[in-house]
Amino acid sequence: MEGVQSTRIGVIMAGGVGERFWPVSRPDRPKQLLPLGPSSRTLLEDTVYRVGGLVDRERLTVITSRELRDPIVASGIPLAHEQIIAEPMRRDTMGAVAWITAHVLGRMGVSPEEAVLAIVPADQYVGDVETFRVDLRTALAAAEQLDALVTVGITPTRPETGYGYIEVADERVEAPGVPGAIRLRPVERFREKPNAETAEEFFASGRYLWNGGMFFWRVSTFMRELRHVDPEIAELIERMAGALSEGDEAQAEQLFSELPKLSVDYALMEHARRVLVVRARFPWDDVGAWDAWRRVVECDGSGNAAYGRPLLIDCEECSVYNEPGQDEMFVAVVGMERVIVAVTHDGLLVAPLDRAQQVREVVRQLADHRNGGGGEG
Amino acid sequence: MEGVQSTRIGVIMAGGVGERFWPVSRPDRPKQLLPLGPSSRTLLEDTVYRVGGLVDRERLTVITSRELRDPIVASGIPLAHEQIIAEPMRRDTMGAVAWITAHVLGRMGVSPEEAVLAIVPADQYVGDVETFRVDLRTALAAAEQLDALVTVGITPTRPETGYGYIEVADERVEAPGVPGAIRLRPVERFREKPNAETAEEFFASGRYLWNGGMFFWRVSTFMRELRHVDPEIAELIERMAGALSEGDEAQAEQLFSELPKLSVDYALMEHARRVLVVRARFPWDDVGAWDAWRRVVECDGSGNAAYGRPLLIDCEECSVYNEPGQDEMFVAVVGMERVIVAVTHDGLLVAPLDRAQQVREVVRQLADHRNGGGGEG
Repeated sequence: MEGVQSTRIGVIMAGGVGERFWPVSRPDRPKQLLPLGPSSRTLLEDTVYRVGGLVDRERLTVITSRELRDPIVASGIPLAHEQIIAEPMRRDTMGAVAWITAHVLGRMGVSPEEAVLAIVPADQYVGDVETFRVDLRTALAAAEQLDALVTVGITPTRPETGYGYIEVADERVEAPGVPGAIRLRPVERFREKPNAETAEEFFASGRYLWNGGMFFWRVSTFMRELRHVDPEIAELIERMAGALSEGDEAQAEQLFSELPKLSVDYALMEHARRVLVVRARFPWDDVGAWDAWRRVVECDGSGNAAYGRPLLIDCEECSVYNEPGQDEMFVAVVGMERVIVAVTHDGLLVAPLDRAQQVREVVRQLADHRNGGGGEG
Repeated sequence: MEGVQSTRIGVIMAGGVGERFWPVSRPDRPKQLLPLGPSSRTLLEDTVYRVGGLVDRERLTVITSRELRDPIVASGIPLAHEQIIAEPMRRDTMGAVAWITAHVLGRMGVSPEEAVLAIVPADQYVGDVETFRVDLRTALAAAEQLDALVTVGITPTRPETGYGYIEVADERVEAPGVPGAIRLRPVERFREKPNAETAEEFFASGRYLWNGGMFFWRVSTFMRELRHVDPEIAELIERMAGALSEGDEAQAEQLFSELPKLSVDYALMEHARRVLVVRARFPWDDVGAWDAWRRVVECDGSGNAAYGRPLLIDCEECSVYNEPGQDEMFVAVVGMERVIVAVTHDGLLVAPLDRAQQVREVVRQLADHRNGGGGEG
């Protein structure tokens, strides 16, 4: 594909619900709209800034759910309203990619051969913006020059069971024009979240990378591979693009509703013929729950992560988040170890760090508990 | 003193500050104004109800601080405004007793020989109102018939280090006209809060009762004993009574300010010549801090005390207090053991139960912490 002109389009996927950060996260204010990183900016703002260094600012698109479009506009990211696109309904990450692809094909006036997408999640932590951009430029150049689906794999720092993995093939990829090509390899296969034993094997072998959910491809390459793997979805995208180009939004939405709920990994990447991965080295975290939050912020000398100026006395490795704002609370946590304390003006969670993953279920039980009654006492 | 007419006057001492129930207790809403018992009534309301069964309702007086007078009136106890008397300033329990005595002598038109006081704290838990009244009637009758200072000692149920003790003499008191006189004994001496070893000895010996801070006496007996023990205080009371009888409130307050800050125990009871004690048997607690709260409310099958409908999952022996009201929070506590979680619309405490006594210091540190700054983040 060398010699083809490229227009790089940044796509930030911001439709996540992030229930596991309750009570700070809410349906109208999920993880990506919270300042869960080391800065006071939201994860989405940080992502816009990171990706803004890779593509023209006007070529940056945020794709999200209908419910979140207004909160995202209100959150003050430096993009025009039309750069924030809402999916008609939830159809997982493959739905988001299908919808944005239909928009590129049907509305943006860029040919599928010319359009190169860089698709990244809005709700991740990246510890080193410069390295992130260097590694993503390798992925973009590989997508442009090698006619492949490209992803970025994170070099693991621990035998994590909470992430998917990418098994890397041994052979090198010949790509003399791609900067950083020395870290480019074919993907052997994608692996689901492993159990602890398998995670240890993965970590020890050095052949596995964390799947960061980032995708890079020419639209023409993507459509060709998708036609091979799942021709029905490919056809729906083309028909959505046609409807959008004719201004028939209702028809496009009708077609969108026919999409299955699938992840990009499951729907495409695991079955595609030519997938490459860049072995990235920037510090990364998916900030999946309260236990992850403490990994991405600066902790005090006793390993406590704190936000909103709580008073911690004799605490160790605690995560204490006191929502700042008008209704800010006075918070004192005393003599606790490895405990999450998260409080807002109308909600409170206290739980051990090792139960952070169960917060979603807690929220559901809490809704039942409050609706279902039970005596005051 | 048999044959002397008696007018029983109930005195509820409600000036306590109760910092150890932060964040639920506040300067304008201390322990006695909180529903810390098993009912939804405040401790003060419960006390008014209990003592209301012993004396005429119009002979019931609440004595408190200036700051608390309005909150107490607003709390809706069934007393006339003039039955709630404010001390000019804080002078400990002896100050409160001196002030109420001056009011009885100077304003109520009851002679010191006729007036019999039943003085009880506002902020205690009593588990059995009927037994309480039976035992207090014994104390009142003893005060009326035996010309003595009388107190009520609580039968200990554990080697508690948080209470003062009363050592009981062996000899019986001959008091044929006093109902329940079989449980009346002379006090050998008052003992300060013991260490753990001494508390065990006290508990094992059976000779010690908990000091519940309740006092019963004829005003004439009280004044006679006080003149013997501390004639200066006795003189101040007489002069305050004189000023009040002349309507000179300012002069009475000026005299009050000259009182030392002393407890009734220290100022009088420990040095008085004839002190009797009724061995009471009602369940009692001073509800001194969050760890005590769980003893006086109904706990669930896992030993959790809960107020305000928090959701508890896999918790054991926790104390969770969610302040009810307009700004009620959704609270979830998961997988915790022997932890205090107390939350209001503007404050949160998380601490182990065994640090409940240190909450007062925590509140002071918190004030410094918030005033002193430190970076946001």
